[in-house]
Amino acid sequence: MKLSILSQLARRPYRGYSFSTSTSAVRWEGGVSMVQGASRGIGFEFVRQLLEKNDKGYIVATCRNPSGATGLLELKNKFPERLDIHPLDLTVESTIEDSAKSIRDKYGWLNLLINASGILSISNVLQPETTLSKVQRSSLLLAYDINAVGPILVIKHMWPLLKAGGGSGTEKDFAIVANLSARVGSIGDNALGGWHSYRASKTALNQLTKNVSVEFARKKDPIICILLHPGTVDTDLSQPFQRNVPKEKLFTKEFSVQKLLSIMNNTERSDNGKFFAWDGQEIPW
Amino acid sequence: MKLSILSQLARRPYRGYSFSTSTSAVRWEGGVSMVQGASRGIGFEFVRQLLEKNDKGYIVATCRNPSGATGLLELKNKFPERLDIHPLDLTVESTIEDSAKSIRDKYGWLNLLINASGILSISNVLQPETTLSKVQRSSLLLAYDINAVGPILVIKHMWPLLKAGGGSGTEKDFAIVANLSARVGSIGDNALGGWHSYRASKTALNQLTKNVSVEFARKKDPIICILLHPGTVDTDLSQPFQRNVPKEKLFTKEFSVQKLLSIMNNTERSDNGKFFAWDGQEIPW
Repeated sequence: MKLSILSQLARRPYRGYSFSTSTSAVRWEGGVSMVQGASRGIGFEFVRQLLEKNDKGYIVATCRNPSGATGLLELKNKFPERLDIHPLDLTVESTIEDSAKSIRDKYGWLNLLINASGILSISNVLQPETTLSKVQRSSLLLAYDINAVGPILVIKHMWPLLKAGGGSGTEKDFAIVANLSARVGSIGDNALGGWHSYRASKTALNQLTKNVSVEFARKKDPIICILLHPGTVDTDLSQPFQRNVPKEKLFTKEFSVQKLLSIMNNTERSDNGKFFAWDGQEIPW
Repeated sequence: MKLSILSQLARRPYRGYSFSTSTSAVRWEGGVSMVQGASRGIGFEFVRQLLEKNDKGYIVATCRNPSGATGLLELKNKFPERLDIHPLDLTVESTIEDSAKSIRDKYGWLNLLINASGILSISNVLQPETTLSKVQRSSLLLAYDINAVGPILVIKHMWPLLKAGGGSGTEKDFAIVANLSARVGSIGDNALGGWHSYRASKTALNQLTKNVSVEFARKKDPIICILLHPGTVDTDLSQPFQRNVPKEKLFTKEFSVQKLLSIMNNTERSDNGKFFAWDGQEIPW
């Protein structure tokens, strides 16, 4: 990220593991944003901050089962004009198309797309592997389907809307696609092994996102794609694996999302195709 | 690769796009080798060279349908004692287990495992994508299943045999797992975009191979894992895409496999988890 000196100074406290925050850093004023995987965890927190910390802007929040998404329904009561909730199942492409159609009919474009969904473990179905001997074909395919394939299909169908939107209604001149990845998806950084299904799916997501960013740049579309590592965040996803995480490295959803929104705010066109940690540092592939 | 000065001198002509060759560089004397995906293309050529350019050593060649693998059947006639052909379907894990059982019963171990299978295009089923708008869930999952999941399941089941074998019967003190990857699987090197399904599957294979190499090293198993980019080789896989490949960059199977066997011959323990091009140069993740 190339930052102005002022914004560099402003961002300085956010580097390293400092917890000082500033509300001004989390603003994403205006525009139409979509958060995919918004019923809980980091996705939900994105929706909450985009609504509560900004005075304007419309949010489309998607999840598999809106009627069970109590947090989103409460936000809808608070922000009836600014929030839409769409049903979207990543494994059923027609639901992604339906969502794109609704957004096109109501707003005509998108300025921000956050793919926040992700699976790591599902009781009796998917368990992060501690060794190669526990690796199963079904787990590898399931994690890939949800963590890599799904987000790319969402970008595929939102592409015309992002192209139509660019930065209109925001302070930027491009739309942003932000895919939630994870540091364990880095091959160069892999010194521990394990978690085969999750790791490989995030690595593939990194490649697919990079691939899409190359096409958008070549076509001069007003869209950039970035990958974000949120840190280890206290959510349902990380809950079974928090035991060995030092307290100061286990972030609240509030803190992590604030940092990630700050990264999005500071992006420039040259950040297209890059992979950033919560503190703004680039992660090797 | 750390090479002795002599072998460095010997390898010098192989750097760059020089086509000079030396039969001494392709020897893999002795031991028990398995080539998965051996009915044609690069896999078949590995089997041929391992048999014809060496005086000893046993080869287990696997493919989905041995009865249709005419090339392998001809080699079996020529080398009845040194070649076994097993049916193995990467999408049916029990066939991998059956193959492991046969190898254990007959030889007791493995010294070399080459995962050579790979899909890029299948008429009416899978086509390398020229743009995001052509990306299909089914294509992404199919390429992942064959190019990433399958090879890892093979390593999973051959692991005890590779551990038992180490370098016994060869000039090394470790067994080798060589997975055929591709430069387009590199994220850092991706400047062109496209081929989403194939790229992402090879990127995931890179991560999975690195992951396994970390576990083997941690357990001090006498096994190293490497990833190999064979160059663009004149095979059925590349045939539809050779139009834009300069003639001097389109390799024969003979040449490419000779180079890859030379890399395997020169590996040291410190090469565990690395990604090499046909000319011995490391490829970034």
